[in-house]
This record gives sequence, C-alpha cells and structure tokens, in this order.
Amino acid sequence: MSFNSFGRLFRFTSWGESHGPAIGCVVDGCPPGIVLRAADIQRALDQRKPGTSRFVTQRKEPDEVKILSGVFEDDRTDGPRTTGTPIALMIENVDQRSKDYDDIRDTYRPGHADFTYDAKYGFHDYRGGGRSSARETACRVAAGAVASAVLQHLYGDGVTIRACLVQMGPHKINRARFDWAEVENNPLWCPDPVAAKDWEEKLDAVRKAGSSLGAVVEVIASGVPAGLGAPVYGKLDADLASAMMSINAAKGVEIGAGMDAAALTGEENADEIRIKNGKPHFLSNKAGGILGGISSGQDIVARFSVKPTSSILTPRKTITAGGEETEIVTKGRHDPCVGVRAVPIAIAMMACVLADHALMHRGQCG
Amino acid sequence: MSFNSFGRLFRFTSWGESHGPAIGCVVDGCPPGIVLRAADIQRALDQRKPGTSRFVTQRKEPDEVKILSGVFEDDRTDGPRTTGTPIALMIENVDQRSKDYDDIRDTYRPGHADFTYDAKYGFHDYRGGGRSSARETACRVAAGAVASAVLQHLYGDGVTIRACLVQMGPHKINRARFDWAEVENNPLWCPDPVAAKDWEEKLDAVRKAGSSLGAVVEVIASGVPAGLGAPVYGKLDADLASAMMSINAAKGVEIGAGMDAAALTGEENADEIRIKNGKPHFLSNKAGGILGGISSGQDIVARFSVKPTSSILTPRKTITAGGEETEIVTKGRHDPCVGVRAVPIAIAMMACVLADHALMHRGQCG
Amino acid sequence: MSFNSFGRLFRFTSWGESHGPAIGCVVDGCPPGIVLRAADIQRALDQRKPGTSRFVTQRKEPDEVKILSGVFEDDRTDGPRTTGTPIALMIENVDQRSKDYDDIRDTYRPGHADFTYDAKYGFHDYRGGGRSSARETACRVAAGAVASAVLQHLYGDGVTIRACLVQMGPHKINRARFDWAEVENNPLWCPDPVAAKDWEEKLDAVRKAGSSLGAVVEVIASGVPAGLGAPVYGKLDADLASAMMSINAAKGVEIGAGMDAAALTGEENADEIRIKNGKPHFLSNKAGGILGGISSGQDIVARFSVKPTSSILTPRKTITAGGEETEIVTKGRHDPCVGVRAVPIAIAMMACVLADHALMHRGQCG
Amino acid sequence: MSFNSFGRLFRFTSWGESHGPAIGCVVDGCPPGIVLRAADIQRALDQRKPGTSRFVTQRKEPDEVKILSGVFEDDRTDGPRTTGTPIALMIENVDQRSKDYDDIRDTYRPGHADFTYDAKYGFHDYRGGGRSSARETACRVAAGAVASAVLQHLYGDGVTIRACLVQMGPHKINRARFDWAEVENNPLWCPDPVAAKDWEEKLDAVRKAGSSLGAVVEVIASGVPAGLGAPVYGKLDADLASAMMSINAAKGVEIGAGMDAAALTGEENADEIRIKNGKPHFLSNKAGGILGGISSGQDIVARFSVKPTSSILTPRKTITAGGEETEIVTKGRHDPCVGVRAVPIAIAMMACVLADHALMHRGQCG
Repeated sequence: MSFNSFGRLFRFTSWGESHGPAIGCVVDGCPPGIVLRAADIQRALDQRKPGTSRFVTQRKEPDEVKILSGVFEDDRTDGPRTTGTPIALMIENVDQRSKDYDDIRDTYRPGHADFTYDAKYGFHDYRGGGRSSARETACRVAAGAVASAVLQHLYGDGVTIRACLVQMGPHKINRARFDWAEVENNPLWCPDPVAAKDWEEKLDAVRKAGSSLGAVVEVIASGVPAGLGAPVYGKLDADLASAMMSINAAKGVEIGAGMDAAALTGEENADEIRIKNGKPHFLSNKAGGILGGISSGQDIVARFSVKPTSSILTPRKTITAGGEETEIVTKGRHDPCVGVRAVPIAIAMMACVLADHALMHRGQCG
Repeated sequence: MSFNSFGRLFRFTSWGESHGPAIGCVVDGCPPGIVLRAADIQRALDQRKPGTSRFVTQRKEPDEVKILSGVFEDDRTDGPRTTGTPIALMIENVDQRSKDYDDIRDTYRPGHADFTYDAKYGFHDYRGGGRSSARETACRVAAGAVASAVLQHLYGDGVTIRACLVQMGPHKINRARFDWAEVENNPLWCPDPVAAKDWEEKLDAVRKAGSSLGAVVEVIASGVPAGLGAPVYGKLDADLASAMMSINAAKGVEIGAGMDAAALTGEENADEIRIKNGKPHFLSNKAGGILGGISSGQDIVARFSVKPTSSILTPRKTITAGGEETEIVTKGRHDPCVGVRAVPIAIAMMACVLADHALMHRGQCG
Repeated sequence: MSFNSFGRLFRFTSWGESHGPAIGCVVDGCPPGIVLRAADIQRALDQRKPGTSRFVTQRKEPDEVKILSGVFEDDRTDGPRTTGTPIALMIENVDQRSKDYDDIRDTYRPGHADFTYDAKYGFHDYRGGGRSSARETACRVAAGAVASAVLQHLYGDGVTIRACLVQMGPHKINRARFDWAEVENNPLWCPDPVAAKDWEEKLDAVRKAGSSLGAVVEVIASGVPAGLGAPVYGKLDADLASAMMSINAAKGVEIGAGMDAAALTGEENADEIRIKNGKPHFLSNKAGGILGGISSGQDIVARFSVKPTSSILTPRKTITAGGEETEIVTKGRHDPCVGVRAVPIAIAMMACVLADHALMHRGQCG
Repeated sequence: MSFNSFGRLFRFTSWGESHGPAIGCVVDGCPPGIVLRAADIQRALDQRKPGTSRFVTQRKEPDEVKILSGVFEDDRTDGPRTTGTPIALMIENVDQRSKDYDDIRDTYRPGHADFTYDAKYGFHDYRGGGRSSARETACRVAAGAVASAVLQHLYGDGVTIRACLVQMGPHKINRARFDWAEVENNPLWCPDPVAAKDWEEKLDAVRKAGSSLGAVVEVIASGVPAGLGAPVYGKLDADLASAMMSINAAKGVEIGAGMDAAALTGEENADEIRIKNGKPHFLSNKAGGILGGISSGQDIVARFSVKPTSSILTPRKTITAGGEETEIVTKGRHDPCVGVRAVPIAIAMMACVLADHALMHRGQCG
C-alpha cells in the first residue's frame, strides 16, 4: 500500500527530492533474462532531460543513470541480463541551486504543493519543491524503460508506444496533418508541422513574458493484444487514469473519446466490428482500445491535460507559513510549458501499466 | 493486488454478476464503534436503484442490503456498532431475465465488454454482462455508505459530498443557475431547473427512439481538511481518477479545471491565497482542492464523462464468437442515459477515497 | 493491505463471526475455465466440520457452502466453470447458542482474545469469540478447495497435499510406523496406528476431565515443481510461516528440520544432491523442500504447534472488563484438542500459498 | 505485492546483491518530523557488520550507510528530520572477491539457493549468492533503525527490543543465569556468561574444523501497548512469523511457548490474569504477548532457529548446472555460526513489524 510505489506484479518504488543528493527507483517483479543496459535506460532519460532546448528548464542535469542491482553480466552473454530480482536505478542530482529557494522557504507558492505538504507533514523540504518536484519523473522514465524492455521481451516489436502534444495552451493541432514522423522534428513533440512552428513562436513570447501555458499530451500504444486488464477496480483504464493523473500538474485524463464521449449518441459511440484479414476489426475507436477495463486489440489511446507551470514572473497573492498575507514572484529555472516535458513521462507510464497488466494476465490466465 | 478490491486502509472487495444469485462486498479496515444500520446503507442504495423513473432501466430490483458481519448489537447500545472486523454486505438479485440474453450469447455487443472478456478469459457469463454489468455498482454504493459513516465518525458533519449531472448529451447546465437544492427535484440529478426540464424532454425522445446519450457527472466534497493525500503514486487525485474511471462507461476524469487547464495561462491557473477569518482562503479553485496530490481544504471537485449506453435499438454491425459478421439489436432493459445512475456511485467512490486517505493520514501523521 | 485477506495473485478475503448470520470469503484471481462445483468445496468442508466425533466440538453446523459468484454454468459444459472473476462463498451459521456466552460478556477468558480485542477495538462481539473464533477457519478450507482446483488445473494430479497430527500433548508418533493410509482410519488424523489408539484413550480422559491438550500438525506437499517462491520477503517459507501462524491457536511453525536445525552441524544439515533418473535428486530433506525461499522440487514439509484449547472446566483466575479480579470456567461446546481440527485447515493454507506462488511465478517467469 | 518489500503502512523495499556495486532499501510511510541521522542507523549496522570477531565472516565491509532522501536539515532544527516521503538508504559494497566464486559458477552448493534460483529464473548471479546472500540483511538492519525511531517517536522510551542467542548447536543457555547485561559482553550475544565461555571454545573448534553450527535467536519486545495487531491474516504473530522466517537460514519460528505449547495442558497454557497496580497483570506468558493476533501488553517473545552455515570445508556431493554429479568444498569467507549475526537482524525485523502495526492501529483505531 506504499504511497510511492506503482504497479502490482511489475512494480516500482521511487524516491528522492529535487535538491537531495540523488533520486532513484527500485523496479521489482521484472522477468529474468532480459538484456538491460544502462544505455537503454539512458536513451529514454535523455528525452526527458532538462536543459535541452530553450523551452525547458535551464537546470543542467546530466541525468546519468546507474544500475545498482538486478542485472548480471555473465561472460557468456552479450550484455547484462535481468536476474528477476529488484533493479535499483539511481540518478545523482548535480545542478542544485538551493539558494534560489531561500526567499520562498516561508512563503507558499500558489499552484504549488508547499501549502498542502505543510498541512500534511507539518513542514517540508522547500528546495525546488522537494518530493513534489517534477524531478521525480526521471524515475518514472527510468522505470518505463525497463517496462519497455519487458514488453519487447513479451511481444517482440509488436507493441509501440508513442506520445505527442496535441494542444499547447488553447491551440490544438490539426488532426488532418497528424504525422508521428514530425514529433521528433521539433522541440515541442508536436505531430503537426504547421502547428509546431506556430507554437514555437507563441511559446517564445510566453517565455519572455515570464508566463506559462498548459498542454494536452496524447499517448498511444499500438499492437497491444486483446485481453489485458481486469474487472472492476483493476481495470486497464482505471490504472491508466491513476498513472496519468499522478504525473505532476495533470488535471484531466481521457481514454478514447474521453470527456467528449458525453456528447455522443449510442449510435455514434459504440465501435462496430467486422472481420478483416480473418481477425476482428473495429470500424472506429471511440473506446480508446479498452472495453470493460480490458484491451480490445485496438490502439490504446490516452490523453491528459497538464496545467501551466505555476512558477511565473508575475507577482501573485499568497500567504506565509506564519499566516501573513504577502506577494510572491517565483524565481528559479522553470519550464514555460511543463507539458512539453510530460511527453516521455506519458510513454513511460503507459509502458509500466501495460507491463504490469501483461504479467498479471500471464499469471492469471497463462 | 486484488483485481476487485479498492482502497488501502479502508478497503472493499466486491463480487457478483448481473444474473447470479447475489452481489455484495466486504469492507475491511472500518474503524470500530461506529453505529451502522442496514437502513443507513439502504438509503444510499435506494438512490441508485433501478426502476425508479422512466429514465432508468425497468429491471425491478429491491436492492435490499443485508449486513452479514462486522457489526454487533450489544444491548447497551442504541444500534449495531462496527467491530473493526470485515463488514460483509449482500444484495440478492431478484429480477433476472436471463432469457433476454439468449440471442447474444455468441454475438459480441458493440461497446460492451463481451469481446474483451472472451479475449481475456476464453469465455464469459453473457447474461446481462456478467461481472461487467453496472449492477456491480450497487456494491460501490453500499461500501460508500460505510465510508460516509467513517467520515462522519472522523469529522462529524464537517464533510459533505454531493454530485449532479452537469451535462447530458451535448447539453450543459447554465452554471449561473447551479443550485444544489434542485438536484433532488428532478429525476436527472440536474442542478439547473431550466436545463432539467429541457433534458427530460430530450431524454424522452431519445428513449422512445431506442437511442441513448452520454453525460458528465460532477462530484464535490466540501469540508475536507487540508493534508489528505500522499506523494507520488498515492496522490488523492490519482486515486480519484482511478475510482471514477473504474465506474462503468466512464471515459474521462477531471479534477478542478480538468482538461480545460491546458488552455489557461499560469496567471489564470494558480489559485491565489489570502487570509480570511484567520484561515488560509483561496481566491479561486482551478486546482479542484488538490495540490501535489494532497487536499488543500478547498472543495474537492471531480468530474467524469459517461459514454452513452451501448445497448440501443438500432442494428449495429458486429461479429460472433465464431468469427462471422452479423448485426445486433440489444434487447433487455436499459437506461437511455446511464450517466443518470452514476450520480450516487460518484458520491460513493468519493467517500471511499476520502475515508481511505483519512485513515492513512491518521496512521502516518497522527 | 487488508487485514483479513491472504495472498497476492490468488487472494482471498474472509469475513464473519462465530455467532453472526453467516461466514464466508471472496476468492479473487482464480484462473478462468476451471470446473468448480459446490460439492468439491463441500467435501473439504466436511473434513473440518464440527460435531463429527466425540473429540470435536458438539456444535452442530452443517457448514453448507454456497457459491454466489464467479462461476458460470454454460449449457455447453459438464459443470460450472470459474469465470476469472471473484468467487464469493458463503456458509450460514445455524447452531448458535449465544446464551452460553452471557456470563462471559464482561469477563476475559484467559488464553482467549477477549482482552486484546477490547484493548484494540474498545469493545468486542463476545459471542463465541466473534471474529477470533475458529469458526473463521471454515472460510480457509473453502478457499483452499478453490486453491486445490487451481493446482489441479496447473499441474494435473502432480501435486498432492496431505496433513496429519504428529504429536498430541507430549505424545509423539513413531516415525517408523508413519503411514498416510492410516490418517483417515482414526478421528485424530494420526498416521501411526499404534499411537492413534493410545491417543484416543488419552484424549477421552482429558475430555472427561474437562481439560485440553495441544498438538503438532504436519503438512506435506509432494510434486511441487522447483522454482516456486521469491526473494526476499516473498519467500515461500515466509508465506507458509505467516499462513500457519495465522491459524487459531498456532504458536510455532517449522519448515523441514525446523527448530531442530539449530542443533545440527553443517555436514548434517545441507542436503546433498545426486542425479537419479536423469533428474536432480536430494539425499535428504532437512530443508523441507525450500532453499532461499524457493521450492527445490522436494516435498515441502511444514509443521506447526497448536496450543491446548483455552476453554476448560477448571476455574481460572481472570479479570472483568471493569477491572475486577474474578474466576472463570468456560462453558460452551469446545474441542479437547483443537489441533485435531487444524489438519484440514493446514492443507487448505498450504494449497492457497502454493496456488498464489504458482500464479505469481507464471506471471513473472512465464 | 512486491516480492522484495515488507510491511504495509511502514513499508520497506530492499535491493542489491552480494557482489554488486551497492545494496540498499527504501523506507516508505515513515511519519514526518522524526530526527534521523545517518549515525543512528550506522550504530545499528555496526552491530551486524562482518569482520568484527573471529566468529563472523572475515569479509571487510565498512557498511557505511548514506541517507539519500526523505530527510531534511532545516537550519532551524538540531538534526535532519524525516519529511514523510521515502527514505532511501544505500550501502556500498567494498570488499567483494568475486574470483572466490569462479569454481562454483556451474556447481550447486548444497544447502544454498543456487539450484532453486536457477530453477526459477533460468540462471543466477553466482557471486556470493547474489540476491540470496545474507548481505541483504544489512538493509533490514537499516530499515529497522528507522522503525526504532518510529517507535521512539510514538512511545518515547516505552518500548525496548532486545535479542540474544539462547542456543548454539545443541547447547542451550541456563535460563536461571539469563542476564541481558551479559549479551554485549561476549561476541556470541549470549545472555548466560557461563554458556558464553563454553560456546566460544566450542565454536573455535568448529571454525578450525571448517564445520558450522546452527543456533536459536530469541527476540523480546517489552513495553508494547496492548491492542497492536489485527485479525485474521494481519495478525501480529503471523507477521512476526513471516518476518523471522524470511531471515536467511531460518527454519522455525516460535511465539511464546512455541512448539512446546503442543505438550502443555489447557491449565498450564492459558495465562491467568490479575490486577496489579491498577492494571491487568498476567501471571505467566505462555502466549508470548499475543492473543488472537493482537498484543496483550506483555513482553512479545519470538524465537527462531538458524540452520548451520552450508558453506563448510568438508567435500559434499552435488551436481552441476549441466546435470553431472560432482563434489564441492565451499571456499570464500564464511561464518561458523551464522546465527550469531542474526541477532541484530531479529531486533530490526521486530521493530519493523511493530512500527507497521503501530501506524496501522493508529490509522484504523485512532
């Protein structure tokens, strides 16, 4: 019932604060015999890393991951293999500037967790948000890389997980121009090349103004076999909702038609089925690949909103821990659109949920 | 890691199928010494009960709950008190018409879980959806009534949980007319009296046409103390997302500003804080009462979409278990807008999440 | 983290008090497609049933089990099959004589849980021990019957679980006369026919004297494949220890050489290995079939002591809930050697632990 | 459902292999505001450390613990305080001599987990036992030190946990000479000064002969309030049984009278109660401080046997991974009586179980 663990049979526990010596996670339940190199995890981490473009925090963290346990490089193999025992991953914090936070140690930043952590714990590590910092998400990405290796182990190249930004601030992509190939061509993970350009300009302005924007991330898993998930509280979509909502700054989660499902009629909503190439073939995907909490074999489509970064240069009304009214301007190094950095995290969380359900399904149903 | 359990310290496990002899749940972890009568639970169940208006399924189920364990009526008390041991609740199924389902035993209903259950388990109980039936939600409501008693025990009358429909099909309420008092005045739990009338007419037409509509349910908990919740995967909002998404037909979940948070700027989004009557007072509630996964003392605001009932009278393309293409018209007794019945369920799930976090908080932080 | 649940992937939750309307359990995680009839469970329950000989409590309980969910009798099968959803089992209480307990409602029975339940919960259901009654073990036996069906499903007739009494009071069996065939020939589950006769006489005398005796139960699982279990806290032997110690009145648990392992030398203790019929063959079984928490393919041998029934006719010093010193003689209907009735429970708990580990192993390792 | 985690509300997850770069654990659920210095944990670790006397392995490990997260040293406090977030502890491995293990990489050591790990995982880290090494127990001791701080936080100096060796090989202490003060006066944690001398001589001989001896560890918690624990599978004694049996080389666990309870009569076994100084006072403690799975306020008494080290200098029959018969002499640096090193581990596990139940009790019962 751990507060800082996620998953059941594939389960990881994360630890660490923004300005402590390190962050990390322990992945338990990973099947044995999977080749897992630090470089494989590093590749995923490099996609989340701060300091890579002008649109993400200028904190310079190499985010270099170390595998401390759970793999064994026998001289008879071509690389270290998982042993089936806990995989401990650690990332040292390098570029902490704790002094930046000195003037906020007693002042609650609006939109941040300072106030609620104090309410719960009586005090909190105010340096960079402590445990509530988005820095924790590096652990998710590391665990997600292990989960991806598990999916590869189970399904070969069958499963592909991709994510992108489909909305930045009020600006949505044009679905007609959606192209996965474009996503890595721009620093905003935008699948619409026209929108990408436009967004860059807009975000530059926002950044210079010291303001921030929200975003919507879409993550899609293709090739997931039908039959993963479980009734009633272990539903695949309930787990995805928990996973996505647990990401820093997330405020809404959708599966398939999502909130818009409310506006549909029964005729529009239920995806009809035909046979194609001898297999069940759905004529639409309003369900987002999940029916009754169990995967249907269609693309699993999840989406979540990310609120705009609360750290902005406009003075905001707030109070101190001592109960005095004051104003605050959040300094430090921040992202103008933290949703941009949520894209690799979305992929990681999708991978973790799927790996967990894949192993549980194998356990229960063989 | 049970598939059919929800919660940690306040935890319930539900069981039962639509057309089996009974359904029920076991609530474990309830504090001792709380007066709990079957009538208290019955009152909540009566709000969810089928057959109460022309807008809900005409299946006639008395939904009479029995408390089989976990309470003890000492002659020194005014009513049975919880003992701290598991509370088993059972509701017998009465009005099953399994024959209605004979012609769908081999045909997958689009939008239903027939296909995915078969994919997972190799076969399924086709009578009324078996385990995937919304009938299971009676167990949630029963467990929720126990959770409400826990909250009453902990906080007296401090915490109030209410829910309503804020959208039916594409039709939204007018927020200016929002009035909790109206919710029980109409069969659609609509807080806007003008919309209520309009919706009734519209839903009548839909019902007669054998079609169906989706909806958006909003559930608000007032008076929840600041400090409930936990980092990072045990976040209050992550648990609410899981809870709401696990409700049958839910496709999207929002906290506070929800999906619309994406379109806000940092200035608009972060709720400013002042002191009022000597206490922290937020000037807005975009956060929906949760910051960093922990309650802030503001209203906790959750919303979820419910897709339109998939059982409609229009013929739909589908396939059989044997892989043949066919069409289906779903008979049986169904709700034209299943979202209507999700309102008491939303209250129940909110109560369960809050009771769980309240007990965990007391455990960890005293 | 439920207090009243056992297991992970094969998990059951039990509920019910000695003198409530019923007891029962919910088994979650059972694989689908296993033929499961109430009669299969009933057969196991009949072995635990009270009132079957003069050596067990004269409470007359038919212990008739009902399957309320989780199975489906399709007309295409020869019997109801598990669906993969929760299996709810219920046993109604019939022969409660709550009046027997009227004079102990305020007096703590030495050796019973009256005092500690009061200390924890503030009050307790004093009728027959309430939740702490051995009556709860009927639920274990019912769940164990499902677990046995799971093992049969996974391994065919490969796995056999048997149990017996190897000690009653200070009297041990003669291992040279150990014969499983004898176990069902006497009401004390004694595998040594000479000891069986002797024990019957001795227990008769104890019974007539209103006293009671302890016992040691031995439970052995044969044919369990090597490789079930897990490091470090999910060890097969740690789970067995928890399972056996959770049985009412258990005070010690042993695996293989058990407590006597302390008196061995390294040479005597470590089981040597040879090859026999092309397979690993251990020359002894001091380990009790478990090394490093994982099964070795040898017989899994567990043993536990059961303390003598605390309900005896000799007056005992005790106190009242109000803090006054007094004496008590426990009336009611009791077992002179409650260890006798623990034999089928031991089999059930072994089956549950093995089913859980078998499914988890399949999940993690395929 | 993690395999490598222990506890519920106070929960730790351990990771690491004997010959990897480091070992460690993550403690989740620790209450906030408790002063916790690395030195406090170090003190406990130093008691378990290898290389401290001629009776323990000569591997030289400083076992220096680092706190990587979960504490915060505010300049307003006298030392770092827990924040309520996960406490990550790491101990680097220093003195690995992996070459010692080269000749056993393909040969199963009798009494070790080599064979079973291979059976489960398909291969294993053969260096020093990998994950099955007793080196993992350093993590338990570290977590136990945090648990002790929790108990101190909750109960002040009220709770004392002590452990000792009450048997080495076949040699038992004389209970009449039992003196806690003697335990730290000899390297064998023996509470009987006469036995201590005798055991030292005997163990010297065993060590020189390259043989090994088993032991029995007794661990006692005094001052634990009545009311900790839970029915039916969350029993305090069931958790202690799991905790102690999970310790490397443990083969039996006892609570109170333990296995000997079987030989008692009802009159001898049930502890009578009187009032002393206005409080309940038990006249004996056969129950070991636990009734119905809940603490009674008496001393909690647990005992477990530790088998003799399997690594001995006498050649033993075994097989290779390839299935060939061979003999093996285990080199490397080993303990002649590994039970000696289990003493601080027993204290740690007792502390973890009690801290977990104390927090859960506070959560459920306030």
